[in-house]
Amino acid sequence: MEAGGRRARTLAHIVIFSVITTMPKSITRINPQAQWSDAVVHGHTAFFVEVPESGADIEGQTRALLAQADATLTKVGADKSRLLMATIYLKHMTDRATFNSLWAEWLPEGCAPARVCVSAELASPDYLLEIAFIAASPL
Amino acid sequence: MEAGGRRARTLAHIVIFSVITTMPKSITRINPQAQWSDAVVHGHTAFFVEVPESGADIEGQTRALLAQADATLTKVGADKSRLLMATIYLKHMTDRATFNSLWAEWLPEGCAPARVCVSAELASPDYLLEIAFIAASPL
Amino acid sequence: MEAGGRRARTLAHIVIFSVITTMPKSITRINPQAQWSDAVVHGHTAFFVEVPESGADIEGQTRALLAQADATLTKVGADKSRLLMATIYLKHMTDRATFNSLWAEWLPEGCAPARVCVSAELASPDYLLEIAFIAASPL
Repeated sequence: MEAGGRRARTLAHIVIFSVITTMPKSITRINPQAQWSDAVVHGHTAFFVEVPESGADIEGQTRALLAQADATLTKVGADKSRLLMATIYLKHMTDRATFNSLWAEWLPEGCAPARVCVSAELASPDYLLEIAFIAASPL
Repeated sequence: MEAGGRRARTLAHIVIFSVITTMPKSITRINPQAQWSDAVVHGHTAFFVEVPESGADIEGQTRALLAQADATLTKVGADKSRLLMATIYLKHMTDRATFNSLWAEWLPEGCAPARVCVSAELASPDYLLEIAFIAASPL
Repeated sequence: MEAGGRRARTLAHIVIFSVITTMPKSITRINPQAQWSDAVVHGHTAFFVEVPESGADIEGQTRALLAQADATLTKVGADKSRLLMATIYLKHMTDRATFNSLWAEWLPEGCAPARVCVSAELASPDYLLEIAFIAASPL
């Protein structure tokens, strides 16, 4: 084979693989509903938000929410060791110490995400917390 | 051609394409101003925030904001079917039901992003809502 | 070399490089602690949050926080020209004008991120502001 042919083929490969690497990435939505999806994954990054589906006090609601987060992480092929960012909204900032101890206990060592923790009025008067997560996902 | 040459060339290709895939990605900014850009795109992910530019009540402001979001999505080569995450700040949580119905009507079926909805004091006393969006973009 | 062999090798290259481009990306954590990491990088995107470590008023705390952001950006191989998104929480919205002037002065021209600015109760009563950043990183 002559050198010109090899160079042409090498160039063709570079073009093909460059196209592959710069192609728009697909979006995966977990349980899309009218107002939100349970999780959305794009470019190996998963976005999801949890509100407590049970629990009467901050301990119960935090445990419920973190268990829900585990379940959602499983659905996007990840787990709590793959969290990148958490935005934590507490109804009462006075619940922070209790939340923090459960949060630290839940996180695997060396795997904490970046995090914000602020107080805000939440969508339901029953909610004591809400967390928006960004995680790495193989999807 | 001898096998050694082919292997060397294959290795060279792997190095070239690995470099391409791990190169820092460029940043595209739409209308960068002193304090914010209207949108910023990096790695096929667009970040943008909308506050209502018109509207006297929650219905008017929501419609205005969602139309602005459509316009921004167009500028980054996307549309409302490509939303990944929305962080919704309402001045009054009592506006939630009205907002939600307009939001659900605006979203294409099966395309809802992950979303947070909390109440917070906004930058202008005139604003009844503000939304931070993350979307997939071909840029 | 026959054409069939070349085609097989080309196909093999495409498979190899497609695998490289779709592989789960690694996560880099800066100073991971029990409840948070100082920064987390994944897919050339860095997530980090700053609260003021010094400063008695909004000017002092803003200057301290922005200097801390510079230091964190350096740790992830970036700088303030690579910001994608900022979520700014002010304890008092009345501090907004002072914050804004320091923020605009800090940002390099043409490099402002998308940004949200809302008021919220923060984790410590001493904090006058908190900022969550997303930035492009070569890591």
